[in-house]
Amino acid sequence: MQNSNIASLARLTEQFERLPGIGQKTAARLAYYVLKMPEQDAEKFAAAILDAHKSVHCCKICCDLTDKEICPICADDKRDKSIICVVEDPRDVLVLERTHEFNVSYHVLHGAISPMKGILPDMLKIKELMARLHDDTVKEVVMATNTTVEGETTAVYLSKLIKPLGIKVTRLAFGLPVGGDIQYADEVTLARAFLGRNEI
Amino acid sequence: MQNSNIASLARLTEQFERLPGIGQKTAARLAYYVLKMPEQDAEKFAAAILDAHKSVHCCKICCDLTDKEICPICADDKRDKSIICVVEDPRDVLVLERTHEFNVSYHVLHGAISPMKGILPDMLKIKELMARLHDDTVKEVVMATNTTVEGETTAVYLSKLIKPLGIKVTRLAFGLPVGGDIQYADEVTLARAFLGRNEI
Repeated sequence: MQNSNIASLARLTEQFERLPGIGQKTAARLAYYVLKMPEQDAEKFAAAILDAHKSVHCCKICCDLTDKEICPICADDKRDKSIICVVEDPRDVLVLERTHEFNVSYHVLHGAISPMKGILPDMLKIKELMARLHDDTVKEVVMATNTTVEGETTAVYLSKLIKPLGIKVTRLAFGLPVGGDIQYADEVTLARAFLGRNEI
Repeated sequence: MQNSNIASLARLTEQFERLPGIGQKTAARLAYYVLKMPEQDAEKFAAAILDAHKSVHCCKICCDLTDKEICPICADDKRDKSIICVVEDPRDVLVLERTHEFNVSYHVLHGAISPMKGILPDMLKIKELMARLHDDTVKEVVMATNTTVEGETTAVYLSKLIKPLGIKVTRLAFGLPVGGDIQYADEVTLARAFLGRNEI
């Protein structure tokens, strides 16, 4: 799809094209859709972008996104502050919270170490994590980074930093997904599930 | 994916969810991406929405989108004003123009008749098309609506309106797509291609 000759429409299409996973055709479709919106809706859309951008920032403690100074989880006195669960992305916190199984604190790294993509440790919220470990509150740090090469690298890197402080470092268990068929599991997952087998 | 607890982020996610083809997870991903943008880029994005919405409207003649009073095609004296090519969507004009084969005028209906979706003839730019046919300039109207039930219905409906004016009404040819394999063509297309066979 060739871009429109109309400058403002072409600019809007370009803006959509910059979003992740949005190709040229989808961008054009979205731009046309926005044009067809009632003016009020377009204003709401633009305001939502600016508003979210202005009001949302990182929690001073855990670096999760929040519109307050300290996020509701960090501000919650009933949370177990002795366990910090380290995740890559703010959305991972939502996913973990959805299980209703944990009553832990979190720390959001905002990425994972990836020399290939040029993401080095000092570009992540590691300094902020280390600063939380210097009193005796924290007893355990659970690595809940992704099970990718980058996530693994980050978990190993952090464990090497944290262990010398005498704090326990753990990793979420690898194994078969619940409700999954064994024949659909890949070899690596199966091997990890075998190694991690438990007595029943 | 559960929506965020942060009100402004949830609002932005909602805005993205309203766009066509964007589900809950994609909307969340886009909203997070916008949050991570530099503030300047977020401002550009919001401005592009408002700007496109304000500056773009329908051409007074052909109803194509434009930021001028009359679109460049209608304003072009070298265009053959005796042939009007009727399309459903502004993007169809771009696609047809890309062939560089036509030197015709266009008319954009902004949709197709679809009683199922509640789109009736008076919701399309048909009045505006008929108004263009009342001097003797136009000799032929080419239906370039989609080859769907709605597109066909619209083409037939318009031809019944236009033929009584003594103007030729034609339809883009049906047949095999160029570069396509016959074994992948569906039966309806093959049947139309057979009916429309030409001597070589």
